[in-house]
Amino acid sequence: MSQSSEFRFTFLSHDHNIDLSSAHLTAEDMGLPSDIAIECKLQTLRGGKQQGSKLITLTVGDKVLRVIPTRAMAILDASRGELRYGWDSPITEVVHPSFINQEASGGLGWLDGFNEMLVRCGYQWAGHPGEDNGDMLTLHGRIQNTPADEVVLTVEQFPPYRVTLSGRVDEKRFKFTNFEVHTELSLTPDEPYIHIQDTLTNLSNYDNTYQAIYHNNFGAPLLEEGASLHVAATQISPFNDYAVNGVHEWGQLSAPTENFDEMVFNVLPIADEEGMSHALMKNAAGDAAIEVSWAQNTLPVLTLWKNTDTIEQGYVVGIEPGTSFAYNRKHQWNLGLVPTIKGKASKVFKVRFGLLTDSESVDASVARIDALQLTPTLVSNNPLVAL
Amino acid sequence: MSQSSEFRFTFLSHDHNIDLSSAHLTAEDMGLPSDIAIECKLQTLRGGKQQGSKLITLTVGDKVLRVIPTRAMAILDASRGELRYGWDSPITEVVHPSFINQEASGGLGWLDGFNEMLVRCGYQWAGHPGEDNGDMLTLHGRIQNTPADEVVLTVEQFPPYRVTLSGRVDEKRFKFTNFEVHTELSLTPDEPYIHIQDTLTNLSNYDNTYQAIYHNNFGAPLLEEGASLHVAATQISPFNDYAVNGVHEWGQLSAPTENFDEMVFNVLPIADEEGMSHALMKNAAGDAAIEVSWAQNTLPVLTLWKNTDTIEQGYVVGIEPGTSFAYNRKHQWNLGLVPTIKGKASKVFKVRFGLLTDSESVDASVARIDALQLTPTLVSNNPLVAL
Amino acid sequence: MSQSSEFRFTFLSHDHNIDLSSAHLTAEDMGLPSDIAIECKLQTLRGGKQQGSKLITLTVGDKVLRVIPTRAMAILDASRGELRYGWDSPITEVVHPSFINQEASGGLGWLDGFNEMLVRCGYQWAGHPGEDNGDMLTLHGRIQNTPADEVVLTVEQFPPYRVTLSGRVDEKRFKFTNFEVHTELSLTPDEPYIHIQDTLTNLSNYDNTYQAIYHNNFGAPLLEEGASLHVAATQISPFNDYAVNGVHEWGQLSAPTENFDEMVFNVLPIADEEGMSHALMKNAAGDAAIEVSWAQNTLPVLTLWKNTDTIEQGYVVGIEPGTSFAYNRKHQWNLGLVPTIKGKASKVFKVRFGLLTDSESVDASVARIDALQLTPTLVSNNPLVAL
Repeated sequence: MSQSSEFRFTFLSHDHNIDLSSAHLTAEDMGLPSDIAIECKLQTLRGGKQQGSKLITLTVGDKVLRVIPTRAMAILDASRGELRYGWDSPITEVVHPSFINQEASGGLGWLDGFNEMLVRCGYQWAGHPGEDNGDMLTLHGRIQNTPADEVVLTVEQFPPYRVTLSGRVDEKRFKFTNFEVHTELSLTPDEPYIHIQDTLTNLSNYDNTYQAIYHNNFGAPLLEEGASLHVAATQISPFNDYAVNGVHEWGQLSAPTENFDEMVFNVLPIADEEGMSHALMKNAAGDAAIEVSWAQNTLPVLTLWKNTDTIEQGYVVGIEPGTSFAYNRKHQWNLGLVPTIKGKASKVFKVRFGLLTDSESVDASVARIDALQLTPTLVSNNPLVAL
Repeated sequence: MSQSSEFRFTFLSHDHNIDLSSAHLTAEDMGLPSDIAIECKLQTLRGGKQQGSKLITLTVGDKVLRVIPTRAMAILDASRGELRYGWDSPITEVVHPSFINQEASGGLGWLDGFNEMLVRCGYQWAGHPGEDNGDMLTLHGRIQNTPADEVVLTVEQFPPYRVTLSGRVDEKRFKFTNFEVHTELSLTPDEPYIHIQDTLTNLSNYDNTYQAIYHNNFGAPLLEEGASLHVAATQISPFNDYAVNGVHEWGQLSAPTENFDEMVFNVLPIADEEGMSHALMKNAAGDAAIEVSWAQNTLPVLTLWKNTDTIEQGYVVGIEPGTSFAYNRKHQWNLGLVPTIKGKASKVFKVRFGLLTDSESVDASVARIDALQLTPTLVSNNPLVAL
Repeated sequence: MSQSSEFRFTFLSHDHNIDLSSAHLTAEDMGLPSDIAIECKLQTLRGGKQQGSKLITLTVGDKVLRVIPTRAMAILDASRGELRYGWDSPITEVVHPSFINQEASGGLGWLDGFNEMLVRCGYQWAGHPGEDNGDMLTLHGRIQNTPADEVVLTVEQFPPYRVTLSGRVDEKRFKFTNFEVHTELSLTPDEPYIHIQDTLTNLSNYDNTYQAIYHNNFGAPLLEEGASLHVAATQISPFNDYAVNGVHEWGQLSAPTENFDEMVFNVLPIADEEGMSHALMKNAAGDAAIEVSWAQNTLPVLTLWKNTDTIEQGYVVGIEPGTSFAYNRKHQWNLGLVPTIKGKASKVFKVRFGLLTDSESVDASVARIDALQLTPTLVSNNPLVAL
């Protein structure tokens, strides 16, 4: 029906003076055959610290994503068929950034809104709070508590009917930071994948340092006793002294465990021929998994965050590719993990989520990861950094 | 007319996707006989730092309350007949929390919005700002600058036609705090009382410490030269060295006094047979008073805050039952005033305001308080804490 | 047609319960002859950190101003005919104050929204961040990140058809600050001037200190290689050691220069017979200029801020009359530049912008400035303050 090859719909745009508080688009609205399972809704949340938060629910085939434009285009959660990917944080509200004070309690205010499946950390800095070279760095940087502009849905009008949701997020401070991030997520009805492609542009003509961590978080039902992690890696080491005790069991996941708190492992991953690294968490039965893949050229290291404490504390595992580990930036200069972005240059970050819901695809993914592991992973007992 | 025994109306609810910006409910709207003096209005405030603040004006009999859902269901002020209860703060706006930075100026940002009759302090901490065990605690905690959700009016359809206004306020920080507060205020047309019943629930399965101070504030016309305070207490002591000079006149109130600033007294109150403690401030003529009563089991101590400086500075007296005194938390561990709330447990705080507008009821209240004072109050010259 | 001598229109008023999200007033709407070039639009901005920002576009004769009620009535930019006055900050959004955390990064969060032609700094303090007498002062004070109330347009119904836009901004902290600022800008179709008249009132009955800097910023096309600054001054000195190198060329302006960063000069200006001081920046051809004039009684000193770095960094010059220089307040007590405002007293600040767009008026202004310079300016090599 449509003469255009692409349907385009703008939810929010300063430039075009568009700001929808609710919307509902069916496949037919998008010019697609009505039997194509693509649908998109926008709603504005109300009450408590959700007041003014926007939520986009995007259905593409058997996958449903919930995306938060007001929180830098984070993915709140995803599902494929019956299986939900994401986690249950004690933070149940989709907190609007105007209620977050990242400076609170020594830089921990970021934790007041932390509950998504995909959380971006960065881009001027990421990692734990604290002072570095006279800069007070708050936990995981500023981007996640920044609302997006230019929130646009595009849908290809021909198979495989790729659906793309994009938004622009600015991270700017006069004289210090002049970053613009073009975020993009895309998926098709038939594939199990969500593709993230973010482009960080340094609009300044001066070089600047940057950091990025894609804090991807997955809880139950995937996470359970007997679930396991699979990564091809040259080295895995404990983040701190506490994690030393668990480093040799880094791949084994436990039932919710009182007083476990969190164990964090630093991973040096191996990439495949296309430059992609992969990590997978599968359930105990091995018939469902999340496969996280990423382009290693800009995200060279991986943090595994085992937060398998009680359900109430937020029973969750993080699979977090990054430019850097989760240490405060001051510890990462020596590790070579504070990269530079040239003036006027861009960096592209690619992350792909495979929502695997049958044994065959889980086994195949594990096999591909195993095939990359030509020599055994060096499992170190020593943290890279003495905290 | 109504077949239900209770009228229920929701002003704000994330769960039910309700967010009214204005409303007006008459007794008839509530299914009541039209001669019952019950009425409720909601308005959204605009301009300056009031932008987005909500205000509920609730008329019940001869009492009118103004309640602020966007500030944790605070009571801005109340009146009974001609008499207004509350005070005139130099802060005249009902400040929306998104304009408050509690970390400002060493943790004093809370003061930018302080103007209500009933202000909740807590619940992770309360008291003066400063560091305790590495935590930077801002003045009087976070709850007051948190907007409520699930703001609901219920009205019983039979005498005494109890009217209840409730709201839920979350105070959460991943890994640190997982508190939910169900606030409730209720009153009837015929009684002079406003009943507050707040339930703090620790949703974590871990124990946590907490603090609460009900910072109830009353100015003119009740407060005037010759007005007086009445409390049954085992001990009254000065908060600090400055208050030593006024501790023996703790019950006497002055006209607005330049350079008085504030004198604060720490009180160990006596409870009645039902476990309620009482404090009263009456005017000079003794024909009007505020009676504050509270359940001592969860609010064991009382702070009296005499801020009888000039009108412009906010001429006001605080009658503040709490788990704790107004010191920074670091000073209260040794006093045993940093209680613990068990994982999954709840604490209920009950405070009752008696709006007394005739000599008989004032005298009767004073007599009840006096009757609790079996032995003289020990008036100490020594602050409990050396600041 | 109108029987009143003044047209009055309220865009925002708590007291009158008015909050327009858009408006468009023509000359006829204002009761003026339709050939009078006066027009006013209000819009609400959306997307990113602009969400909720208001912008008023005011056309008066050949001048167009854009004013931001949500940022203390700042002037975003102005134009006269083809010539735009203002600058291109890397901050492109009109950032809503709810997204600004002034405490961020040691008090630098103000920089996240800095992009206007007229930025008010103050009024409890202004200048660089840092601690003074135990107070943590954030960069340039709080007023600019405070939304206005009582935003009112008035238009005289007779020649010269003076148009006035006013707003009230509160800066209040219980026990510390009780300031109210009545801002007013006015202009007529025929004159090249924008008149600013701000009245700061100390509502407290106690004296307080205050500071104000009118951070007026101008970039290209006026600013260019060969542009120059003209001020009648008794003394000009470098702000810091870096500025020593440029102090003798204080009046000469460069093309955008990599790594120039900023040079700041402290100026003691000379006033004319009417108590007005004047500074002018003209373009290389001398046929366009901005003339900044101010009442010296309340704004005794002038800061010249040469930020002639690259375009991308924000190529801009500040002409900033103030009570004080840009140092942290702790350095200004000894300079006598921390004035006192008496309890219940007001201070009036007058600033006038001359938008000069032809050689004659530029030359005339330079001549008036030169005529004030009876003896040579003392150009000092020594900063007033050792930083």
